[in-house]
Amino acid sequence: MRNLRVAVVGLGRIGKVHLETLLRRTAGVEVISVWDPRSAKAEEAARSGGIPSVGKSFSEILEADVDAVILCSPTDTHTEYVIAAARAGKHIFCEKPLALSLAEIRDAIAAVEAAGVQLMVGYNRRFDPNHSKARQMVETGKIGAPHLLKITSRDPAPPPPEYCAVSGGMFLDMTIHDFDLARYVMGSEVKEVFARATSLVDERIGQSGDVDTAVITLDFENGAIGVIDNSRRAVYGYDQRLEVFGSAGMVQIDNTRHDTHEFFGAEGTQRALLHDFFMDRYREAFAVEMGAFVESIRMGREVPVTGHDGLLSVAIALAAKKSVADNRPVHIDEV
Amino acid sequence: MRNLRVAVVGLGRIGKVHLETLLRRTAGVEVISVWDPRSAKAEEAARSGGIPSVGKSFSEILEADVDAVILCSPTDTHTEYVIAAARAGKHIFCEKPLALSLAEIRDAIAAVEAAGVQLMVGYNRRFDPNHSKARQMVETGKIGAPHLLKITSRDPAPPPPEYCAVSGGMFLDMTIHDFDLARYVMGSEVKEVFARATSLVDERIGQSGDVDTAVITLDFENGAIGVIDNSRRAVYGYDQRLEVFGSAGMVQIDNTRHDTHEFFGAEGTQRALLHDFFMDRYREAFAVEMGAFVESIRMGREVPVTGHDGLLSVAIALAAKKSVADNRPVHIDEV
Amino acid sequence: MRNLRVAVVGLGRIGKVHLETLLRRTAGVEVISVWDPRSAKAEEAARSGGIPSVGKSFSEILEADVDAVILCSPTDTHTEYVIAAARAGKHIFCEKPLALSLAEIRDAIAAVEAAGVQLMVGYNRRFDPNHSKARQMVETGKIGAPHLLKITSRDPAPPPPEYCAVSGGMFLDMTIHDFDLARYVMGSEVKEVFARATSLVDERIGQSGDVDTAVITLDFENGAIGVIDNSRRAVYGYDQRLEVFGSAGMVQIDNTRHDTHEFFGAEGTQRALLHDFFMDRYREAFAVEMGAFVESIRMGREVPVTGHDGLLSVAIALAAKKSVADNRPVHIDEV
Amino acid sequence: MRNLRVAVVGLGRIGKVHLETLLRRTAGVEVISVWDPRSAKAEEAARSGGIPSVGKSFSEILEADVDAVILCSPTDTHTEYVIAAARAGKHIFCEKPLALSLAEIRDAIAAVEAAGVQLMVGYNRRFDPNHSKARQMVETGKIGAPHLLKITSRDPAPPPPEYCAVSGGMFLDMTIHDFDLARYVMGSEVKEVFARATSLVDERIGQSGDVDTAVITLDFENGAIGVIDNSRRAVYGYDQRLEVFGSAGMVQIDNTRHDTHEFFGAEGTQRALLHDFFMDRYREAFAVEMGAFVESIRMGREVPVTGHDGLLSVAIALAAKKSVADNRPVHIDEV
Repeated sequence: MRNLRVAVVGLGRIGKVHLETLLRRTAGVEVISVWDPRSAKAEEAARSGGIPSVGKSFSEILEADVDAVILCSPTDTHTEYVIAAARAGKHIFCEKPLALSLAEIRDAIAAVEAAGVQLMVGYNRRFDPNHSKARQMVETGKIGAPHLLKITSRDPAPPPPEYCAVSGGMFLDMTIHDFDLARYVMGSEVKEVFARATSLVDERIGQSGDVDTAVITLDFENGAIGVIDNSRRAVYGYDQRLEVFGSAGMVQIDNTRHDTHEFFGAEGTQRALLHDFFMDRYREAFAVEMGAFVESIRMGREVPVTGHDGLLSVAIALAAKKSVADNRPVHIDEV
Repeated sequence: MRNLRVAVVGLGRIGKVHLETLLRRTAGVEVISVWDPRSAKAEEAARSGGIPSVGKSFSEILEADVDAVILCSPTDTHTEYVIAAARAGKHIFCEKPLALSLAEIRDAIAAVEAAGVQLMVGYNRRFDPNHSKARQMVETGKIGAPHLLKITSRDPAPPPPEYCAVSGGMFLDMTIHDFDLARYVMGSEVKEVFARATSLVDERIGQSGDVDTAVITLDFENGAIGVIDNSRRAVYGYDQRLEVFGSAGMVQIDNTRHDTHEFFGAEGTQRALLHDFFMDRYREAFAVEMGAFVESIRMGREVPVTGHDGLLSVAIALAAKKSVADNRPVHIDEV
Repeated sequence: MRNLRVAVVGLGRIGKVHLETLLRRTAGVEVISVWDPRSAKAEEAARSGGIPSVGKSFSEILEADVDAVILCSPTDTHTEYVIAAARAGKHIFCEKPLALSLAEIRDAIAAVEAAGVQLMVGYNRRFDPNHSKARQMVETGKIGAPHLLKITSRDPAPPPPEYCAVSGGMFLDMTIHDFDLARYVMGSEVKEVFARATSLVDERIGQSGDVDTAVITLDFENGAIGVIDNSRRAVYGYDQRLEVFGSAGMVQIDNTRHDTHEFFGAEGTQRALLHDFFMDRYREAFAVEMGAFVESIRMGREVPVTGHDGLLSVAIALAAKKSVADNRPVHIDEV
Repeated sequence: MRNLRVAVVGLGRIGKVHLETLLRRTAGVEVISVWDPRSAKAEEAARSGGIPSVGKSFSEILEADVDAVILCSPTDTHTEYVIAAARAGKHIFCEKPLALSLAEIRDAIAAVEAAGVQLMVGYNRRFDPNHSKARQMVETGKIGAPHLLKITSRDPAPPPPEYCAVSGGMFLDMTIHDFDLARYVMGSEVKEVFARATSLVDERIGQSGDVDTAVITLDFENGAIGVIDNSRRAVYGYDQRLEVFGSAGMVQIDNTRHDTHEFFGAEGTQRALLHDFFMDRYREAFAVEMGAFVESIRMGREVPVTGHDGLLSVAIALAAKKSVADNRPVHIDEV
């Protein structure tokens, strides 16, 4: 079977991660072209990665002989680019969130469906082998009927306050990963959300109207209750844990660490720190994710994270925002 | 200094635990008398424990030459007995909860204050050396400003459904320990409560109007957010964990287990189960607790868990019940 | 069944541990008398423990109305006292080692057998619930045929150099516990010993002719190979670990710690230190041990650690000493 | 700086690992040619890896325009190929062991030195980030003066008995990695060896004159004592642990596992298995190792594992064999 030919759009932090993954850790794919409005970035990436072509505009990318585009541009371009790519007959891998409004996302999904192409959304955590193990244990009934889900998700440091303001806020930017992970691991939909959130990490985040610390309760259709806790700053690194408790047992997913050493000294024993941030922690997940996209398209199978998944996580995030604003639980149908 | 002379009232499960602790693990105390309306129980306990006297009624106990009474009788007798004991000039150790209504508790506290005796409430978890370590790390600023508190508290098996009905429900019977522990570890008061609760463990519990599975969000006066998750049945044992996350770090308290073995076999590696239930898990805590009561009274110092503490945990539990009933966050001043 | 009546002989460090265990943690026993040549120690112990009688000499103890003596006197008195007690018809619990020479031990065993009394030797580690778990997994075949045994045993601090000189040396004083534990866990006898030992902790220990650091290889009759590593000073506490590896799996016994906390800070994560020393680490084991002695005598069953066990661990220790002196493996029949 | 041009010689199991590492995980290198006497293997590797040339013989490889050769051919070809490559002016990466006799290794080192090229030996475990952490803690004095070293190294399954016969035996084939790791972590040379070894895993291994289970004691020049334990079959996977104990503390390196999950069920709690074997366990180490070779040659720096290192680990292995044969400790100068 011939290799999938792709173009990468946007070479910020996550764009570089995906490009590196495509070039060095993904089988069955060739990167044909890259584009970023900051053309020096695109040229440097093409040179160091041996990529044959550098696009001059997004529309030029769509004219290139590629099967799929990898969209890593800013969130406010996502649906416009998805729609254009779909109309050009390209399959699409798009970073999260698809957009900050449900209406835009619905338009994008409609365009994708009309064009008969596939759209996969970049919820990389589903592809972490640890999280997959939890999902497998829920799916196979190992833990029995699920009763409680707990996700801890804390970043090592907040983004700049100005970023918080334009990102749609913590729920749409950061917790959205946890909302998607919750749906994935439970295999059940969220019905109602209650979010308690505040700004304790950096007062400028609060002043910008955003939050940096939160506890969010989720009601699932299967009757289980979930809870997510978030912070924008864990001084000890990137804290990513998960547990599902059920009628027949519990599965816990612990953090990964730099190494397996423990030092025993006169003051106590010391273990390695957690991984610094998502590039280290989810390095393997990014490779599995991109491999899954490439294989799905090549094999003509449905991608594992669809536009519908992208829609629902945004809906939960919007409900969480509304819950904080109104200080009451919000049903998902309200947003 | 002479030994404290005490009488034990009520010889159900927890009464036996306290009696054994007083007889074999507490210094500076003598058990002078025991009473239980099931007189055979009292006589058996006196015989096997070498206790000189068996009471015939609660009022006879109050006439005995004792400095303090240890109240382990059913909850609906607590405030009546506290008031009578206070009027008789006895110091009081009373099991939780003090009562199911705030008005009764206030009456009891008033009687205690009028009599100038001391009242300590049996929140044993404060005295667990692991929890004390967490409290110490919060108190000394090791974790910085507290942002998040998480308590997991799951019983190995539910009480009989008929017990659930009369106990005041899970929040007043079981979670009340977690409410007290939350206040203790954080060193800050709870302002508002949102509780999501359901019955997934045993449908008869739901039919009796009670719940067996819950996630409860707490707002603290210091600005932190807390979350407690509960289940009445964890098949793997008594699950008791706690974590406090702050601006300078996090402290986690893990479960204790039967032993430290790990078996490495062809199918995976296996570790010992958690302790079965509170008698094993908090065996050390019960000894520290009773020692603290005895020493406080002998030294004329204030007891470490006061009637006020007993009042506040009941208030939080009542707010949690109201939150479930109304499906909205409830301020502690509402109850 | 009536209580066992015992006298405690010798109130040094281990004598106090056993007395406390008998008084507060052992059922079915009464301490009738205590004796120590330092009579103030005996009187203080009797007063604070409510013990009816204080002996004036060891022979007076033997005349007392006791069923058994608990010998915690210095090693060089052990066999003399064992023989005298046996002739007086008393059962005997004797601290390890029975003596520093095999001839003396054989004499003591002969006297015990002639008198028809029982002799139990104080190898407390057999009664640690963690070690018992390892023994059980070997015994039941859970790990298959045993291939390798590893014991790590490190003290927190060395005894005074002058003690090392008279104690018979590290192998007879400290490693002897590990030799007994090795036999117990494996359920097989040691055939040959190779010991590599040196003094790295304190040069005065080396100057006194003793060692403080060692690695000892053991050949077992069942074909397995064992290895013990020792140090007289682990700055991080009392390090007591064990692992048995077999054809069907491995069981590991980890250390116990002060508590279950882990602190996650910017520099790494920190866990509690190990227990300080044997009184904390083996507190439970001492209670199980003394309970086993009392019950065995009361029930007329054979004690779980016999004079023969006491003999064999000394034989292994003597072989280890000879191995270091000759720098060659030494067969157990050579000593 | 231009890329290093290399040829890979030998495409058995380890040859494929190194080739994959060079192609996909190593910067600054180009694989110009491959050769294996089984020419189909070489052609397949060249095709799937996009390698421009396939050699017809080892001498043709030496005529190719390459800077270095990667020798993964059978052990009995190593010194012949090293000498030929050195004379052809090629730098050399050679798999362990360099040879089974010290005389051959000395000849190869002499040829390398005469030619002024570099020879690196494939002791991949030095490059494992966990082991590097232990080395760093020893080197920086974090653990103080080293007293004890413990290495556990157990394979998941033995090689075929016929392989054991020709490999030089377990010490030269498998333990040789541990001997090198011991020297690396301690930063001190081995003086004397005592090895106790037997065949418990597969009787055909014993019949072939080899062993499959061993405990080896090492004396280091710095006064410390080391111990290695080996088995050819651990049913629970590839067991690779290390600990260094010193005057100021201990560092432990634990195993890596498939994932971080723990399942809590009614029978106990279960964690993931260890990694299966060296390809998984040391995948990262192979990348660091090959990167170190490529960078050393490109930068003109000395390679981190020299021919001298290759010589010494073989010497220790030969001493261990002699120790088993003679049942006595053997000084390294005896071999």
